Amino acid sequence: MAKKYVYFFGNGKAEGKAGMKEELGGKGANLAEMSSIGVPVPPGFTIATTVCEYYYANGKKKPSTLDAEIDANIKKLEKALGAKFGDKSNPLLVSVRSGAAVSMPGMMDTVLNLGINDDVVAGMIKKTGNERMAWDSYRRFINMFGDVCMGVEHEHYEDELTRIKKKYKRALDTDLTSEELKEVVEAYKKVYKKHVGSAFPTDARVQLTHAVNAVINSWNADRAIAYRDINKMRGLKGTAVNVQAMVFGNMGDTSGTGVAFTRNPADGTNEFYGEYLINAQGEDVVAGIRTPEPISTLKKKMPKIYDELDKIRLKLEKHYKDMQDVEFTIQEGKLFMLQTRNGKRTGLASVKIAVDMVKEKLIDDKTALQRIDGDQLNQLLFPIFNPKAKQAALKGNGLIAKGLPAGPGAASGLCVFTADDAVKWAGKGKKVILVRKETSPEDVSGMWAAEAILTSTGGATSHAAVVARGWGKCCVVGCGDLDIDYKKRQMTAGKRVIKEGDEISIDGTSGEIMAGHVETSASPVVSGVVEGNKKALKDPICKTYQEIMKWTDKYRKIDVRTNADSPQDSLNARKLGAEGIGLCRTEHMFFEGDRIWAIREMILSEDEAGREKALKKLLPYQRKDFEGIFKAMNGHPVTIRLLDPPLHEFLPHDEKGQKEMAKRMGISANVVKKKVESLHEFNPMLGHRGCRLSITYPEICRMQVTAIVEAACNVTKKGVKVLPEIMIPLIGTDVEFNILAQLTRETADAIIAKKKSKVKYLVGTMMEIPRATLIADKVAQEAEFFSFGTNDLTQMTFGYSRDDIGSFLPEYLEKKVLLEDPFASIDQEGVGQLVRTGVKLGREGRKNLKCGVCGEHGGDQESVKFFAEVGLNYVSCSPYRVPIARLAAAQHAIEAGASKKGKKKK
Amino acid sequence: MAKKYVYFFGNGKAEGKAGMKEELGGKGANLAEMSSIGVPVPPGFTIATTVCEYYYANGKKKPSTLDAEIDANIKKLEKALGAKFGDKSNPLLVSVRSGAAVSMPGMMDTVLNLGINDDVVAGMIKKTGNERMAWDSYRRFINMFGDVCMGVEHEHYEDELTRIKKKYKRALDTDLTSEELKEVVEAYKKVYKKHVGSAFPTDARVQLTHAVNAVINSWNADRAIAYRDINKMRGLKGTAVNVQAMVFGNMGDTSGTGVAFTRNPADGTNEFYGEYLINAQGEDVVAGIRTPEPISTLKKKMPKIYDELDKIRLKLEKHYKDMQDVEFTIQEGKLFMLQTRNGKRTGLASVKIAVDMVKEKLIDDKTALQRIDGDQLNQLLFPIFNPKAKQAALKGNGLIAKGLPAGPGAASGLCVFTADDAVKWAGKGKKVILVRKETSPEDVSGMWAAEAILTSTGGATSHAAVVARGWGKCCVVGCGDLDIDYKKRQMTAGKRVIKEGDEISIDGTSGEIMAGHVETSASPVVSGVVEGNKKALKDPICKTYQEIMKWTDKYRKIDVRTNADSPQDSLNARKLGAEGIGLCRTEHMFFEGDRIWAIREMILSEDEAGREKALKKLLPYQRKDFEGIFKAMNGHPVTIRLLDPPLHEFLPHDEKGQKEMAKRMGISANVVKKKVESLHEFNPMLGHRGCRLSITYPEICRMQVTAIVEAACNVTKKGVKVLPEIMIPLIGTDVEFNILAQLTRETADAIIAKKKSKVKYLVGTMMEIPRATLIADKVAQEAEFFSFGTNDLTQMTFGYSRDDIGSFLPEYLEKKVLLEDPFASIDQEGVGQLVRTGVKLGREGRKNLKCGVCGEHGGDQESVKFFAEVGLNYVSCSPYRVPIARLAAAQHAIEAGASKKGKKKK
Repeated sequence: MAKKYVYFFGNGKAEGKAGMKEELGGKGANLAEMSSIGVPVPPGFTIATTVCEYYYANGKKKPSTLDAEIDANIKKLEKALGAKFGDKSNPLLVSVRSGAAVSMPGMMDTVLNLGINDDVVAGMIKKTGNERMAWDSYRRFINMFGDVCMGVEHEHYEDELTRIKKKYKRALDTDLTSEELKEVVEAYKKVYKKHVGSAFPTDARVQLTHAVNAVINSWNADRAIAYRDINKMRGLKGTAVNVQAMVFGNMGDTSGTGVAFTRNPADGTNEFYGEYLINAQGEDVVAGIRTPEPISTLKKKMPKIYDELDKIRLKLEKHYKDMQDVEFTIQEGKLFMLQTRNGKRTGLASVKIAVDMVKEKLIDDKTALQRIDGDQLNQLLFPIFNPKAKQAALKGNGLIAKGLPAGPGAASGLCVFTADDAVKWAGKGKKVILVRKETSPEDVSGMWAAEAILTSTGGATSHAAVVARGWGKCCVVGCGDLDIDYKKRQMTAGKRVIKEGDEISIDGTSGEIMAGHVETSASPVVSGVVEGNKKALKDPICKTYQEIMKWTDKYRKIDVRTNADSPQDSLNARKLGAEGIGLCRTEHMFFEGDRIWAIREMILSEDEAGREKALKKLLPYQRKDFEGIFKAMNGHPVTIRLLDPPLHEFLPHDEKGQKEMAKRMGISANVVKKKVESLHEFNPMLGHRGCRLSITYPEICRMQVTAIVEAACNVTKKGVKVLPEIMIPLIGTDVEFNILAQLTRETADAIIAKKKSKVKYLVGTMMEIPRATLIADKVAQEAEFFSFGTNDLTQMTFGYSRDDIGSFLPEYLEKKVLLEDPFASIDQEGVGQLVRTGVKLGREGRKNLKCGVCGEHGGDQESVKFFAEVGLNYVSCSPYRVPIARLAAAQHAIEAGASKKGKKKK
Repeated sequence: MAKKYVYFFGNGKAEGKAGMKEELGGKGANLAEMSSIGVPVPPGFTIATTVCEYYYANGKKKPSTLDAEIDANIKKLEKALGAKFGDKSNPLLVSVRSGAAVSMPGMMDTVLNLGINDDVVAGMIKKTGNERMAWDSYRRFINMFGDVCMGVEHEHYEDELTRIKKKYKRALDTDLTSEELKEVVEAYKKVYKKHVGSAFPTDARVQLTHAVNAVINSWNADRAIAYRDINKMRGLKGTAVNVQAMVFGNMGDTSGTGVAFTRNPADGTNEFYGEYLINAQGEDVVAGIRTPEPISTLKKKMPKIYDELDKIRLKLEKHYKDMQDVEFTIQEGKLFMLQTRNGKRTGLASVKIAVDMVKEKLIDDKTALQRIDGDQLNQLLFPIFNPKAKQAALKGNGLIAKGLPAGPGAASGLCVFTADDAVKWAGKGKKVILVRKETSPEDVSGMWAAEAILTSTGGATSHAAVVARGWGKCCVVGCGDLDIDYKKRQMTAGKRVIKEGDEISIDGTSGEIMAGHVETSASPVVSGVVEGNKKALKDPICKTYQEIMKWTDKYRKIDVRTNADSPQDSLNARKLGAEGIGLCRTEHMFFEGDRIWAIREMILSEDEAGREKALKKLLPYQRKDFEGIFKAMNGHPVTIRLLDPPLHEFLPHDEKGQKEMAKRMGISANVVKKKVESLHEFNPMLGHRGCRLSITYPEICRMQVTAIVEAACNVTKKGVKVLPEIMIPLIGTDVEFNILAQLTRETADAIIAKKKSKVKYLVGTMMEIPRATLIADKVAQEAEFFSFGTNDLTQMTFGYSRDDIGSFLPEYLEKKVLLEDPFASIDQEGVGQLVRTGVKLGREGRKNLKCGVCGEHGGDQESVKFFAEVGLNYVSCSPYRVPIARLAAAQHAIEAGASKKGKKKK
C-alpha cells in the first residue's frame, strides 16, 4: 500500500490527532484534535510534512501518489459540506495554510478563498445573495494568489486599487460597489498576466496545486530559514499544508474574525485576551493594517458567540494543559475555530501561567519548569525605568507618545527607521531602537539587533509584538500618534520631530515613549530578593519567582556559582541562589583608588626587589577584599583566579595619562612611554599574560597567595567557614601548573603553619587553552580542580578575537556560517568537544576531579544543559544569570530523569 | 644472587662490551670493548648506570651490595697491576670518570690521581724516583678532589699557587721545585680544610667513595640537565663511574697525553687528526689552557708511539665502523688508550665520512643515512662569505685576527663578552657573536643564543669547538692575538679596540675575524646544484651531497614539497629536490611594484563593484605569476593559498605613507587614516583574515581563482602539465569551506568550459584552526586535500602569538617549561595530537584524503619524522630545508623498516 500523505478532519472526527505534530504540523494536528474533541472547526485535510521532506530530498518532486490522495480528500470534503470544488452553483472555497511542527508566526504563506473563478463568483452570489462579498473575495484571492504563489508584488495590485478608488472617488476599500470591485478584479487579472506571463488560472484544482507548491516552497524561503536559525529550530521535517473549507468573516456585521489567548500573554492573568475585527478576513487582524478591538467588547456585541468562545477557551486549556493562542471566524453568526496552538508569552506571563497551572493542578512542577524559557525567566530580572528618572523624563515635554505595551522591560536607544540600519548601527556597538510603521518577516534581523521595537500600527498580536515577546525584547506597538517618514528618516508626534540618531526611551510595560535617555532600576524581583525591599517581596511577581526557584533547587543536580569580584556582588549573587564563587577576578581590584599606582610602580620596577616592594603595598588591599568576599560566601567555596591580563592594561596609553603618571611617580614621561611601548603586543590575547606572568614574576603569585591565605586565616578566626580555591589561569602545559602550584602551596602552607590555622585550600587551574584540554590527564596529576574558561577557549579554538569578531560576525550569522554567536552559547561541536575531552582526561588523571565552568556560557540556558550533560560539577555565571542557570540545570536534570534531592535522600 | 653493578676490564679481557652502553655508559663500554680486542687500556672497573638510576629512585641512596662489589674489584685491580690501593711502598692510583650512554663532553666531573696521601707520595717517590712528579700529582689531586667532590672553588687554590710562585719568583708552574710543590700541597690542604670544614681525607677508599658520589651527583647538576635538554637527550638511566688505574703523562719528556679523531672532524678527510701535549695530564689538552701541538708532529717526536697509535686508529674504525674520538696517554714511552667514542663532527665531515665509509664498505647506505643529522646536512647549504665582499673587508685594516677554524660557515654579529649578554641581546632579536677567553659548560645557553663563538685560547677539541661543532655553529678558537677584557667589555688586537656592540664577521672555515658586516654567498652545493655552476658541481662536497640525496630518495616514503611564491624560488626548490609546491602564498605577490596600489584601491572601495574594478587590475599580474610557477613545477602539484592576511597589512600605518597614498589616489589623507583606523584590530592573528575575507568579499576569491585557472589553461596549451590545488585558508567550520569551495568550483568550471580546457584541479583547505581539526570529518566531505598549517595551529593550540612570545619564551626554555621552541619543532603531545586527530577524522570523511603540512615544521628533522609517522602524504618547507626534509623522511622510512621504491617496484 502506498504511504499515507493526507489526513482528513471534520464533523467531530479526524484521521490525525494532537500527538502527530511532527507529521501534520502544529496547526494540522490541532485542527484534527479540535475536530475530535468537538470544537467547531471547518472541515478540511492536512498534507503531511513528509511531503515537504520528500520534496526537498528528491530534487523538488512531490510523491507520485499525492495527487490521487488529494483528489480523494477533496471528494470527502465536498461530501461533508454538500458543496463542490469549482462548482458554478454551489462552490466550495478553501484556505491553504502552512504549519510546521513548531509555530513560525508570519513566516509561512497563506492563501485564502482558493477556488474562485468567474463562474464560481456567480455561484457564490447565487448561493449567498451577497454580491459584494463575492467580488471582494475574488479580488482578494487574485491578489493573494498572485503575490504568494507567483511572486507578483502586492504594490502592483495596490496601484490598480488606488487608481479605481480615485476614479470613483472612494475613500475606503469598503466604499467600493460590486460593480467597481468587478472592475478591480479585471484590473487585477491584467496585473497577474503582465507579471506572470500567463492568464490567471481558472481551474480550482490547478489553483490548489499552485498553492500547495507555494506553501512547500515557502519552507525554504530566506526569511523562514532565518527565523528557524534565530530561534534555534532544528531537525524539522518541513511544513504541512492545511487545506480547509473557507469560512467568511467578511459577510457583513454578523461576521468577523479574531485572534485570542486563553490567558493574558503579557502578564499571565487568567483572563480571555484577544482582538477581533467585524466584517474582516483573518489576515486583517494579524497584518496590523487595521487596529482591532479588544475581545471584551465582543461580550456586548455578540454575547452568545462570546459565551461559546469562552467555553471553548476553557475546554482547550483543560485539553492541552497550556495557554492557547486561537484564531476564530464568525460567519453570519456562526463560530468557527480556525486554529489553536500554545501561545507565545512574556517571561512574566510564562512564569505566572506555569505556577498558576500547578496550583490549578493542570500540570506538575516538573512540567512547569520545562515550560519556562531562560530568557523569559530573565525578563523578571529586567530593569524597569527608575521611577524618579522616569517622572523627571515625563515632566515638561518628555512624553513623546503612548502605544500598546507588547514586550516587557525598559530600553533607551538611538532611533533608526530601517532594519538594515538597526543591524549596521548595532554592529558598531550602538544601542538602537527600531521604529517602523509595522514590521514584517523581512525585518527580523533588524528587530533582533535592536534594543527595542516601536511600531505606529498593529496590536498585541501583530508581527512586531509576537516576535518581540518571543525574544523577551522590549516592544511598544500601535502607537498611532507617531507619523513615520521613512524617506526623511524621522517621525513626528504632533509638532515634535524625532530624527534618526535621536535617543528615545521605551517602557514596554506602560507603552510610554519618552525623549532622551531614562535611567533604569531593578525589577521587583531584584528589589525584593536581592535588595530586601519588603514591599517588593510581597509583589506577586516576586512570589512567583521564588516558587519557581524553589522547584529548580528540588531537581537540579549540579551547583550554580557566580562570577563576582567584590563583597557586594558576592552578597547579591548569594541572594539570587549562588552556591559559591566560581570566578573572582583579582585584577579588577587593582583599578580601585590608589591601588593602580602600586601596580604601576611594580611594572616600572627593574628588578624583583623593586617589584616586591610595590606588591607589598597591594597586599593589605587584596587581603581586605578577600576577607569581605569570604564573609559574604561563608560556608561556600570561593575560586580566586591569580592575575590574568597583560601588564600593559594597567598603564595609561594616552600622552596625558602618561605625563600624569610620570609626574606622580617622579620620573620622566619618556620612561613611562618607553615602558608602555616595550609592553606593546601584536596579539595581547596570545601574549604575556595569565600564568606566564607568574612564571616570569613569581613575586606576583606569592603576593596574591599571601593575601588569599592570610585573609582566609583571619576570617576563620572570626568563625567564618572559608573554602578558598586558588586558580592558576592560562595553563597550556603541565609544567607551568606544577611550578606555580608548588609555589602556591609552599607560600600558603608557610602562612597556615605560622598562623597555626586549620584553613584548607585547593589549587586548581583554568582550562582555557586548547592544548591544556588535550593533556588534561597530566595537569590533573597536581591540579585539584578544573574550571573551564570557555570565553578564551572559544577564542582560541575558533581563532576568533572577541574584540575583533564584530567585523565579520554579523555577516557570518547572516550567511549562516555560524548559527549563533559562539561567545553567547557554547559551540558544542568544537569548543564543547574540547571541554568533554578535558573532563574525561582530567578524571582519568584524578578520579572525581572537581570540574566547573566560569565563562559567560555558564549563564546561557543551552550551554548550562550541555555542561550538565558533560558532567561538570558546577557552572558559574554573572549574578543576574544565576536564576537562569538554576532553571537550566533543573531542566537538564528533569530531562535526564533524575532528582538531586531525591538522590541525596536515598 | 645480588644484582651485578660493577664490571671489570683489563689485560685483554673484560666483563663488559660495546653493546652494553646503556649499563656501562659509552666510555665504560668502550673501555671494556677496547680491552677485549687487544687495545692497550689501563685496567679498571665500571660502576654501572643502574647505580645512578637506583640512587635517584631511592632518595639518593646507593645499593647496599655496591661497596662490597667495589672492594672486590679493587682487589682484582691490585692483583692485575701488582700494586696496592693506598699502599706506602707500591701504591695504586686511579682516575674516576663519568660516562653516560650518550657522550656529554665537559658535562660530567672527573678526578685524577685518586689514592694519594702523605704516605703514598713517599711510596711514589720510592717507586718512580721522580719526586717532582709525585708532589705535582698530589697538589693536582687535592685541588681537583676539593673542587669536584667538595665544591671548593678552583680560584682559592690558584691564589695560594700564585702566592708561592711569587714567593720563590717562579714564572711557570713547571718552574716550581719539589720542595716548593710540597709547600703548595700543605697550603692546598689548608684551603681544603677551611672551605670543607674537615681535614683532607687521607684514606684512599674514602677518597674513592667521595669521588663516586661526586660523579653520580654531577648527573643532575644544572649544567648537565641543560645540556641534555638542549641536545634532546631523554630516557637515559644516568651516568656510569669508571675507575681506572692511573697512567701518567706528566712523567717527563717521554710522557704525554693527547686527544685525536680517526678522521678529520672538520671536513671528514680520512687522516689522523688530533693534538697532544708532552709532559701533561689529560685534562690539560681539552681545558684549552695550553695550546697543544698537532698530532702529525708526534710522528717525528715519537715515531714508534705514532705508528702504534695509527694502527689502533684503523683497528678501532674497523671495529666500531664509525669515526672515533680517542684519548691517549704516553707514560714513559708506553702508550695507553683511555677512551674511544664516536667522534663529533661538522656537517661536512659527517656527510663525507658517511659516504666514504659506504665506499669503503664499512657500512651500508641505510646506516650512512641514519648517521647524518639534519642540522649537519644543513651546514652544507650554509652561506659562505661572498668572496668579493670578503676581499673588500680584508683590505686595509679589515682583518682583526686569525684563529683556528672550529665550526664551519660564516657569520656576522655584534660582539658580546658574557653568555648572559648573548642570551639577552639575542632575546631582543639582535645577532651576536659570543667572544670569550675560553668557554665552559656554564656558557652553554649563551653559546646557543649566539650566531658564532670566538675564543682566544683552546684548540680544535676545546669545549667551545666541540660544542659548536655539535650544533653546526660557526666557531673560531685559539685566536691568541686577541686580548679580551671582560671588565671593560672589549677586546684588543694590537692597537685596535673592539667594544661590546661592535659588529664583526667570522669565517668558520678559514679562522679569519673581520671588522664590520661581510656579505655572504651560497655554499658550493647551492652554487652547483641550485645555480648550476659547473665548477661547483665538481666540488667533492657537492658530489657527496648528491650521493646522499640519491639515497634519501631511494628510501623515503613521503613526498617533499616546498613553500615558494615566485617562479625563481620554485625553480630553486625543484633543484633541491622539491616535488611540488605545498604552499604558494598569493599575498606576497601583492607587494610587488604597482600591484600594492590596486589592492589599496580595493580596500578603499565602498562597494563590491569598486572592489571588483580594483581586483581586475590585479588579475593579469597574478595570472602571470601563476603561469611562471606552473611552468617551473611542470608535472608537479602546486598548492595555492587564497589571500590570508588581514587587509590592514596592505595599508601604510605611518603618516607619511598615508599622505603619499592619499595624494596618489586623489583622496584626503583623513580618509586613508580613517580606513586604517577602521581596520585596526586588537588581535589581528584572530581577526578578519583568511577565509573570513573571502566570505565577506567573495570577489577576492573569484579573482584569485580566475587568475589560477586561467593561468593553468594557458600553460596547458603550451604543453605544460599543471596540477593546481586551490587552498582555502583558516577554515574553522565546514560551512565556511563549503561556501568558498562552491564559489571556487563554479568560477573554475566556467573558465575551463569557456576555454574548452581539460585542466583538472583540486579544492582543499589549510588545517590551522584547532576547531577545524576537531570536525575534520565534516570538512573532508567537500575538501579534496588538507594541508596542516602548523604555525598558526601552534599559535592557537598554545595561545602563543609568534610575534609576542619573545617576552617569555627565553625564560620558559630556561625554566624548562618548554623543552624547545614549539615554532621550531612541532609539539607532538599537544599540537601533534590535533594533527593526528585531523588526519584520522579527515580520512574517515574521505578515504585516502591527501594530507600534507606546510608550516615551518615541514623542514625540521624531528617534525618530519613525526609527520611521516602520522601518515601525511607530504611535507612542505622552505626551499633550503628540502634536503633536510628528504633526509628525515628517509630516516623515518628506514626506522619504520620499509622502502618507498622497493614497495613501488613490487
